[in-house]
Amino acid sequence: MTKKKNIKVEVEVSAHHVHLSRKDVDKLFGKNYELTVFHPLSQPGEFAENEKVSIKTKAGILENVRILGPIRDYTQVEISKTEAFKLKLNPVIRESGDLAGTPGATLIGPKGQVALKQGVILAYRHIHASTLQAKKYNLKHGKLVKVRIPGPRALVFENVMVKVRDNYDWHMHIDTDEADAAGVDRENNIGILIG
Amino acid sequence: MTKKKNIKVEVEVSAHHVHLSRKDVDKLFGKNYELTVFHPLSQPGEFAENEKVSIKTKAGILENVRILGPIRDYTQVEISKTEAFKLKLNPVIRESGDLAGTPGATLIGPKGQVALKQGVILAYRHIHASTLQAKKYNLKHGKLVKVRIPGPRALVFENVMVKVRDNYDWHMHIDTDEADAAGVDRENNIGILIG
Repeated sequence: MTKKKNIKVEVEVSAHHVHLSRKDVDKLFGKNYELTVFHPLSQPGEFAENEKVSIKTKAGILENVRILGPIRDYTQVEISKTEAFKLKLNPVIRESGDLAGTPGATLIGPKGQVALKQGVILAYRHIHASTLQAKKYNLKHGKLVKVRIPGPRALVFENVMVKVRDNYDWHMHIDTDEADAAGVDRENNIGILIG
Repeated sequence: MTKKKNIKVEVEVSAHHVHLSRKDVDKLFGKNYELTVFHPLSQPGEFAENEKVSIKTKAGILENVRILGPIRDYTQVEISKTEAFKLKLNPVIRESGDLAGTPGATLIGPKGQVALKQGVILAYRHIHASTLQAKKYNLKHGKLVKVRIPGPRALVFENVMVKVRDNYDWHMHIDTDEADAAGVDRENNIGILIG
């Protein structure tokens, strides 16, 4: 086991996005519609789609929200807390798929709408690592670690969840609020795992 | 000198706001117009005014931005980086009054407009302390300290500037991005000075 101090991890910023179930793709884009890839994401097999939807509540609307693929067993909406404030929603921080008790919203696509009873969350900030990388540094799936972001707005994110899969690779994912608070941008995008 | 570990500080969230010079109050609200107090702020002699302006760039507009008083020698606009992104501005983190080289924007009031050549900043996160409080804990004006925010989105803000004045009192000020990234709200609003 190698000491995990000072592992450098590229930080990627996740803007608001939606994951869709097959059933909800059908409702929003038409029966058996196949989403089309806009570009691949850093984690193999995951990608940004060309298709977008709107997220609507009684208080407001967020337009042009990109769908991330592939299709999942559940529909999930990930927004920033700043956006939640405008939509007058009060989502909490959840892991993907852990949606019981989360607020809903209406999704609007070109062919129809879906009134979600639940599914809006703030994403749990996390680090991806391959099984080998994780083993080398004794990082277990689900473990919470600390990552320091240097720069004028330097800070240490605690409660960063480790996500391990064979084909994952070192990347940290945070949302736009977290990126803006930490001063993360294209020039300042390296986090340091400090514990 | 007492150890400064574990001083608890109430965290207040500064939404976007504007400080105005006398000249710019005249242009926006009319000659010799007197701004009227909406409510006092935590630091004595400072207050939120009833009056609001809009902040406009070629890319967008931010409406209903509150003015904070009293009048200053310079006009200064403080927004979040999330908002700056929408306005297509690229402000950096500055102390109040340190405005050379910062981007401008157009302010719009009920009686006129002001085209600022500079003055839009991201606020330097900071802690207010009275001269006595600062002395007790050996905190010097301008010193950078670290503050931990507990909770599900726990983090440690580094580069928190200490601001000392006789009549100040313990309060930490962060912007909306920082509050949202740290999960600061009415129930979770205590920071701990850890170094």
